[in-house]
Amino acid sequence: MFSFECDYAEGAHELILKRLLETNLEQLPGYGEDHYCRSAKEKIKKACDCPGADVWFVAGGTQTNALVVDAMLDRFEGVVAAKTGHVNAHESGAIEYTGHKVLALPEHDGKIDAKELEEYLEEFWQNDTREHMVFPGMVYISYPTEYGTLYGKRELEEIAAVCRKFEIPLYMDGARLGYGLMSPAADLTLQEIAKLCDVFYIGGTKVGALCGEAVVFTKNNTPSHFLARIKQHGALMAKGRLLGIQFDTLFTDGLYFEISRHAIRMAGLLKEGFASRGYEFFLDSPTNQQFIVLDHRQLAWLKEKVVFSIWEKKDDAHTVVRFATSWATREEEIRELMGLLDAYR
Amino acid sequence: MFSFECDYAEGAHELILKRLLETNLEQLPGYGEDHYCRSAKEKIKKACDCPGADVWFVAGGTQTNALVVDAMLDRFEGVVAAKTGHVNAHESGAIEYTGHKVLALPEHDGKIDAKELEEYLEEFWQNDTREHMVFPGMVYISYPTEYGTLYGKRELEEIAAVCRKFEIPLYMDGARLGYGLMSPAADLTLQEIAKLCDVFYIGGTKVGALCGEAVVFTKNNTPSHFLARIKQHGALMAKGRLLGIQFDTLFTDGLYFEISRHAIRMAGLLKEGFASRGYEFFLDSPTNQQFIVLDHRQLAWLKEKVVFSIWEKKDDAHTVVRFATSWATREEEIRELMGLLDAYR
Amino acid sequence: MFSFECDYAEGAHELILKRLLETNLEQLPGYGEDHYCRSAKEKIKKACDCPGADVWFVAGGTQTNALVVDAMLDRFEGVVAAKTGHVNAHESGAIEYTGHKVLALPEHDGKIDAKELEEYLEEFWQNDTREHMVFPGMVYISYPTEYGTLYGKRELEEIAAVCRKFEIPLYMDGARLGYGLMSPAADLTLQEIAKLCDVFYIGGTKVGALCGEAVVFTKNNTPSHFLARIKQHGALMAKGRLLGIQFDTLFTDGLYFEISRHAIRMAGLLKEGFASRGYEFFLDSPTNQQFIVLDHRQLAWLKEKVVFSIWEKKDDAHTVVRFATSWATREEEIRELMGLLDAYR
Amino acid sequence: MFSFECDYAEGAHELILKRLLETNLEQLPGYGEDHYCRSAKEKIKKACDCPGADVWFVAGGTQTNALVVDAMLDRFEGVVAAKTGHVNAHESGAIEYTGHKVLALPEHDGKIDAKELEEYLEEFWQNDTREHMVFPGMVYISYPTEYGTLYGKRELEEIAAVCRKFEIPLYMDGARLGYGLMSPAADLTLQEIAKLCDVFYIGGTKVGALCGEAVVFTKNNTPSHFLARIKQHGALMAKGRLLGIQFDTLFTDGLYFEISRHAIRMAGLLKEGFASRGYEFFLDSPTNQQFIVLDHRQLAWLKEKVVFSIWEKKDDAHTVVRFATSWATREEEIRELMGLLDAYR
Repeated sequence: MFSFECDYAEGAHELILKRLLETNLEQLPGYGEDHYCRSAKEKIKKACDCPGADVWFVAGGTQTNALVVDAMLDRFEGVVAAKTGHVNAHESGAIEYTGHKVLALPEHDGKIDAKELEEYLEEFWQNDTREHMVFPGMVYISYPTEYGTLYGKRELEEIAAVCRKFEIPLYMDGARLGYGLMSPAADLTLQEIAKLCDVFYIGGTKVGALCGEAVVFTKNNTPSHFLARIKQHGALMAKGRLLGIQFDTLFTDGLYFEISRHAIRMAGLLKEGFASRGYEFFLDSPTNQQFIVLDHRQLAWLKEKVVFSIWEKKDDAHTVVRFATSWATREEEIRELMGLLDAYR
Repeated sequence: MFSFECDYAEGAHELILKRLLETNLEQLPGYGEDHYCRSAKEKIKKACDCPGADVWFVAGGTQTNALVVDAMLDRFEGVVAAKTGHVNAHESGAIEYTGHKVLALPEHDGKIDAKELEEYLEEFWQNDTREHMVFPGMVYISYPTEYGTLYGKRELEEIAAVCRKFEIPLYMDGARLGYGLMSPAADLTLQEIAKLCDVFYIGGTKVGALCGEAVVFTKNNTPSHFLARIKQHGALMAKGRLLGIQFDTLFTDGLYFEISRHAIRMAGLLKEGFASRGYEFFLDSPTNQQFIVLDHRQLAWLKEKVVFSIWEKKDDAHTVVRFATSWATREEEIRELMGLLDAYR
Repeated sequence: MFSFECDYAEGAHELILKRLLETNLEQLPGYGEDHYCRSAKEKIKKACDCPGADVWFVAGGTQTNALVVDAMLDRFEGVVAAKTGHVNAHESGAIEYTGHKVLALPEHDGKIDAKELEEYLEEFWQNDTREHMVFPGMVYISYPTEYGTLYGKRELEEIAAVCRKFEIPLYMDGARLGYGLMSPAADLTLQEIAKLCDVFYIGGTKVGALCGEAVVFTKNNTPSHFLARIKQHGALMAKGRLLGIQFDTLFTDGLYFEISRHAIRMAGLLKEGFASRGYEFFLDSPTNQQFIVLDHRQLAWLKEKVVFSIWEKKDDAHTVVRFATSWATREEEIRELMGLLDAYR
Repeated sequence: MFSFECDYAEGAHELILKRLLETNLEQLPGYGEDHYCRSAKEKIKKACDCPGADVWFVAGGTQTNALVVDAMLDRFEGVVAAKTGHVNAHESGAIEYTGHKVLALPEHDGKIDAKELEEYLEEFWQNDTREHMVFPGMVYISYPTEYGTLYGKRELEEIAAVCRKFEIPLYMDGARLGYGLMSPAADLTLQEIAKLCDVFYIGGTKVGALCGEAVVFTKNNTPSHFLARIKQHGALMAKGRLLGIQFDTLFTDGLYFEISRHAIRMAGLLKEGFASRGYEFFLDSPTNQQFIVLDHRQLAWLKEKVVFSIWEKKDDAHTVVRFATSWATREEEIRELMGLLDAYR
C-alpha cells in the first residue's frame, strides 16, 4: 500500500547514498572534525549569506530543540511557543526534561501573533511578582508550522522586532525548512531568515537525509563549549561524517532546494486534486502537509487503500487527516490517489 | 596518512550500505515500527538465545548510557562504575545531567572488582546515615573496558551475584562488544552475557555501522513506556529504519562476529609486531585497542607518519598511546606500520 | 500602616512561640526523628481519621509541591493542573526544574472541572501518538484555590473518581487548608479530604506557623526512601523539631481549626463591609482571600492608607485587588478599614 | 541521657527566641523584603568588611549548596570538591540532582591541596578531549571541614590563587563557620575569607539559629535574578523574617562570635579530657567536632550513657566516633562526660 503518511517514509536522496558509498572507506576524524562537515558548513553559510554564522550538525529535531533551548536559556527561563508548537505538544516533555518550562501562547493556524507576544512580554515585565514566575528567555517558532502554514516576511519581522525589544533570542525550528522556502506562498528567503533569527535549524531528516539537522547560530552567539553541551545531551555522533556528507550533498548545486521544490509541486497537485473533488480543507496550507476533513465513511474507505495520518477529531462526524508529500513523492502516486478518490462512491 | 586512531574512522561495512541502497525507496513507518527493526530484533534475540529479551535501537553510546541509566534508576539512586568507566570519565557529565551521581569504584586495568563492589554495597547498607547518601541503584561495567580488557566469565558471574544479592541491575556497556566476544582471551559468550546482565547494549557504531546501538533488556525488565523515554531524551530516530537495517545486516549470517573477529586478528598482528620489536605495553589488552608506551622521541617521530591516539602521560619521559584496529583495518596497514617501526632509528 | 496584603505578614501564633521557648534546650535528634515530630504526626493522623496515613514535614509550599510531584511521577509523566494553579503560575518553574511538565487545564474561578479533566485524559489515552506527548501522571488541585474558591464535596468526589478511573493520584495543595475547611461554604471535612485524595498537604506557613507544611500520604503510597528524596531536594531540616513542635501545637486542642475559623470570621466581616458599601467583587470567594474591583481613583486613594495586593488588571479602568485576613487579623483592623472606606469620597 | 551527638540538638539561642517573640505581631512584607532582613544584611556586610557584598538568606545547608553551585555553574560544568566534602558525600546527590557532577579530589584530613588542585586543573585544560569531560567550573571547600579541620591562611590564599588563575570561583561552605573562626588554631578572619572567596555562607543552623544560612557574594557576582532561582529551588521562605531576625540577632553585638567561642572552649575541655585520659584521636581537630577512636568494649559501655555519633569503622577492633560541642553545651556536661570516662573500667 502506498503512503502519504509523512515526509520521512523513505530513506535518503540517491545522491546522498552515492556520496556515502564513495567516501565510505576514507579514514576521517570523529565527532564532526572531518572535512566533509567543514565543507558542508561553508556551503550552508554561503547559502545563508551569513559568513559569520556558526553551523553544527545534530541527528534529530527533538534533540536539536532540547539542545538549543537548554543552551540558550538561563536556568530560571522558559521558552515561549505556540500551544501547538512541536516543543510544547509532541516531544514527550523533552524541553521540560532539561528543566525549562514551555510558555504557551495562543496559536493561529499554528502561528503565534507578534502583538500577542508583545503583550505577553510586556505584562510579564510589568508584573511585580515576576520573580515568582518563569522568565520568558527565548521565542520558538516553526517554519513551516506543525500545520504547514508559513509566517509572512512582515510577520517574521514583527516577531523578530519584539524579540529584539525584549532582548531575547528568536529560534526557528526548520524541520521542514525547505518545504517552506520553496512554497509559492513564501515571501521569505533563507538569507532573510538568517538575518531575522538568532538561531534556526535546517531540517535534513524530512528533506532527503537519513537523519540530521543543521543548527545555525547567526549572531556570534554560539553558547560556550557547544561541543561539550552536545556530548552532554548524548547528541554527539562519533561518525560525524554521516551528517557532514549528507548536508554537503544537500547543499551542493542546490539539491536541498530542488528536492523541496519537487515536494511542493507534488503537494500542489494533491491539494488541487482534493479541492477540485470538493473535499474540505481543515486550513489552507501552502506547504507539503495538507489537512483534509473526512467523514467516517470516507475515512474508513480510504484508509483501506492508502496510508495517511489521522490528525485530530473535528467533530462527532468528521476527522482531520494529513496527507504529506516529500522529496520522494512520485507524480504517479498522486495520480493513483486521485484515482482512488474518483473510485469512491 | 593512514590511521589507527580509533574504531570509527571509516563509514559502514559495505553490506550495510548495499542494504541501505536496496531498501531506500521502500515506504516504511517511522520511529522503529518498520519490519527491518522487527527482523533485527528477532535476530538479536536469537543470537542472545533469549527469546524473552526486549531490544531497542538508539543512535549512539553516550545517549544509550544516559537513557538506560536514567530509566532504570529511581531519582535518589546513582550508578556504580569504575573510576575509568565511560559514564564517569568521558561523557561530559551526561549521566549527572539526568540527575544521577556516578558512584566511582577503584579500577583494575579498567575493571571493577566483585569483592570491592560487595564491600562498598555492604558498607552502604550498614551505614545509618545512608539516607543522606546516594543509593547505589545499578552497576555499570563495560566489555571490553575502556582499556581494552575483558572480564572473565568467573569475574562476571561474581559481579552478577553481588548485584542479585543487593537486588540492583547489572548493566553492560558493549560499545565494542564484538571485539570482546571475538577475542581469543574471551571465555564469555553473548548468550552468557544475556543471562548474567539485566541490560546491555550491542555496539554498532564501532563495529561496522554508521551509527547505532542495540539495547537488550533480558529479564522482562524494560522500563515502562520506554519509547516515550527515548523520545524525551531526544533519542528517537524518525527514520528508525536506518538503525533497523544496519542491525539486521550485522546479525545476518554472523556478520557482526565475523568482522569483529577480523579486527581482533588485526589487533593480534599489531600487538605481536610491537611486542617483537621490544615495545612496552601499558597493560595487556586482548582486544582491538592496544596501549603502547612511547618515549618522547618515538612519539614525535611516529606521529608524523601515522595517526593514533595520545592516551595519557605515563611519566615525565613516556606517554601512553593507543592504536585501535577495527572491522575496516587492512592487513597491509599493519604491515605498513611495522615497516615504520623498523625504519625508526 | 496596617496590612491585609497576605496571610503571612505576622510571625507565629503565640502558643507556638511559647512551645518553642519551653522546649528550646531539650536535646533532640535531628532530621525529624524527635518525639515532637512523632507526636505531631499522630495528632494529624487522628485529625484525618486515617491511622494508616504517613506524615512528613517540609518547610514551604513550593518545596512541598516540587518534592511531592517529582516523587510521585515517573520521568515521562507530567502533572495536570488548572492554568491558574500555583504549580503552573507562581513557582518560578520549580516543577519544570524537576523535569516535569505542568499540563494546564482551563480554570473556572481557579478550579478544574471533572468533566474536562476526564475528556482530557480520555483523549490522551485514545491518541495513537501519545508516546510523543507528556503522560498525565497525577492531578494537582488547591483547596482553597489561588482565588479563594472551594471545591464542593461532589466536585471533589467526581475529580477523585476520574483519577481512580485513570489510575493516577490526586494531590491537593492545602497551603490554606484551614481557611477552606472552616469556611461556612465548605461541605468537606479533613477526614473526607484524606479519603478522597492520595496525598495532600496541610499548610502551616499561612495558618499560624513560622514555616512548615505537613504532607499526608493517605493510601500506603509514600514514595520509597522519601527521606532521601527530601534531602536530595535540599528540603530536609536539620532541626526538624522546628516543624514538629509547630504542628504539634497546631493540632493540640484544635488550635489549627480555631485560628482558621477566626480568619474566616474576619474575612466575613471584611466581605460584608465591602459588599454593603457597594464594592464589586471579582468573584465570590468564601475564604480568607477577597478579590475586590477598584477603579483608579479608589485604588490610588486606598493604597496610601492600607496595604493590600494588586492582583491583576480587570480592564482599562479597573484593577482587581486582594485583601487577605489570617489567624492574626484583629477585628479592629477590619473596623479601621471600613472607616477608611467610609471616609473615601 | 545527655548528648554530644551534633551541634543542632537544641533549639536557638535565647536572644533569638526573645527577638522572635518581640517582633512577632509586626506586619512585615514576605520573601525577605522586610527590614530585619535588610538590617541583618547590613550587619553581615559590615562584619565582613565588604560593603559591596550581596547577602541572601536560605533555610538550610544542602539547599544552599545546591542553589549556589547550580547558579554559579554553566550546564556543562561541575564543582571540584574533596572526596569527603559534604556536597560529594552527604547530600543525597543534591548537586547531581541539579545536573552537575562533583569532581572529587583527594582529601587530606578533609582538606583539598592547592598543588593537587592546580595539577588537576592544568591536566584538564591540557587534555585534548576535554570537551568529552566535565569542565571544572568552581571549587568547593568547607571551613571547618567535615573533619573539623581548618585551612590555614596560606592554604586558603594558595587555593584562591589557583582559582583566580583558572578563572573559576571559590566557594566556601561555612555551615560551622563560627566554630572555625573562633578556634585558637585559626589564622583567618571573616574579612579575609570575604576577600579570598567569591562566595561563601555563614552557617546559622549549627551556630545558634533554628535554621538559616547567610550566603555572601563578595565580588559583585550574584547570579542574575537570584530571587527567582531561590524560588525555583523551592528555597524561598514566605516568612523571610524568620531568617532575617535570627541573623540580625546573631550579628548584633558579636553574638555569633561569642557563642562560637563558647563552643570552642567547651571542645577544648572535652579534647583535653579525652587526651589526658589516654584516648586516641582519629585526627587533630581544632574545632567543635572531636573524633575519638574507641574499641568495642569502650564503645558499647559509653553509648549506654551518653549520646554521640558513630563516624566510621577504623579497623576490625576500633571505631571512630564523634563528640560535638555547640553554643549550647554546658561545662557541667563536659564534667559529667569526664566522670563517665573515669568510671569506665
